[in-house]
Amino acid sequence: MLAFWDYAPMSTDPQHRPEPSPVFARTPEPPYYAVIFTTTQTDDGEGYGDTAAAMEALALQQPGYLGIESARSGGLGITVSYWTDEVAISAWRQNVLHAAAREQGRAQWYAHYELRVAKVERASNWDRPASAEHPHQ
Amino acid sequence: MLAFWDYAPMSTDPQHRPEPSPVFARTPEPPYYAVIFTTTQTDDGEGYGDTAAAMEALALQQPGYLGIESARSGGLGITVSYWTDEVAISAWRQNVLHAAAREQGRAQWYAHYELRVAKVERASNWDRPASAEHPHQ
Repeated sequence: MLAFWDYAPMSTDPQHRPEPSPVFARTPEPPYYAVIFTTTQTDDGEGYGDTAAAMEALALQQPGYLGIESARSGGLGITVSYWTDEVAISAWRQNVLHAAAREQGRAQWYAHYELRVAKVERASNWDRPASAEHPHQ
Repeated sequence: MLAFWDYAPMSTDPQHRPEPSPVFARTPEPPYYAVIFTTTQTDDGEGYGDTAAAMEALALQQPGYLGIESARSGGLGITVSYWTDEVAISAWRQNVLHAAAREQGRAQWYAHYELRVAKVERASNWDRPASAEHPHQ
């Protein structure tokens, strides 16, 4: 079974905000939306980590936010955030702190980015059976 | 300007297959499809890299393949592959070598995965202006 802490939190209940986790977003049954943000960065990463963490905390307070998954390697960063609908994405885009962070990203951190807004139509997952956790035993 | 080699190849022209690149997929105007595959892995990564590279090379030969973006950090892997439509995704899923690789993934490499199929409805990108490449000069 996948443990609770293997999922990043979602904010459906404003009274219940578990600590962020680095791993999977716990998304509902489709349809919902994914914002796929892929980036390359400049050599000047000062302040990036703090701002990224602040934006993730801020997003948690946004209506319709479902979670985030993020990884960076080989010079490429991929962050996928999940949202209930386009209204939620639009509201997040209009958040003034988020707008300021985007502006700083273009001024300092990003060399290039691609932003794609996609409607998740179907989803599945798979979890390793407990008996197969050590297949070579 | 974004250089040619900043993009992963796409296979619209079977006579023209540039070498794979680790960075951005060069996707057309929406709509098209994204397959968002997020994973955690077991401790047994033997053979994973070779198979992943082989699958990327094989996907390049699939009709409707548009490109791939991939990163892994903090225990989480994110691979987003792009396709013209659901028919192309379905055909790739039925490729026997791909099916065998998926089976090996479940037997050996993956601890957990989430697979989401999403229709990209809009997209934009941004490239650092040449004059701003060294903003602190």
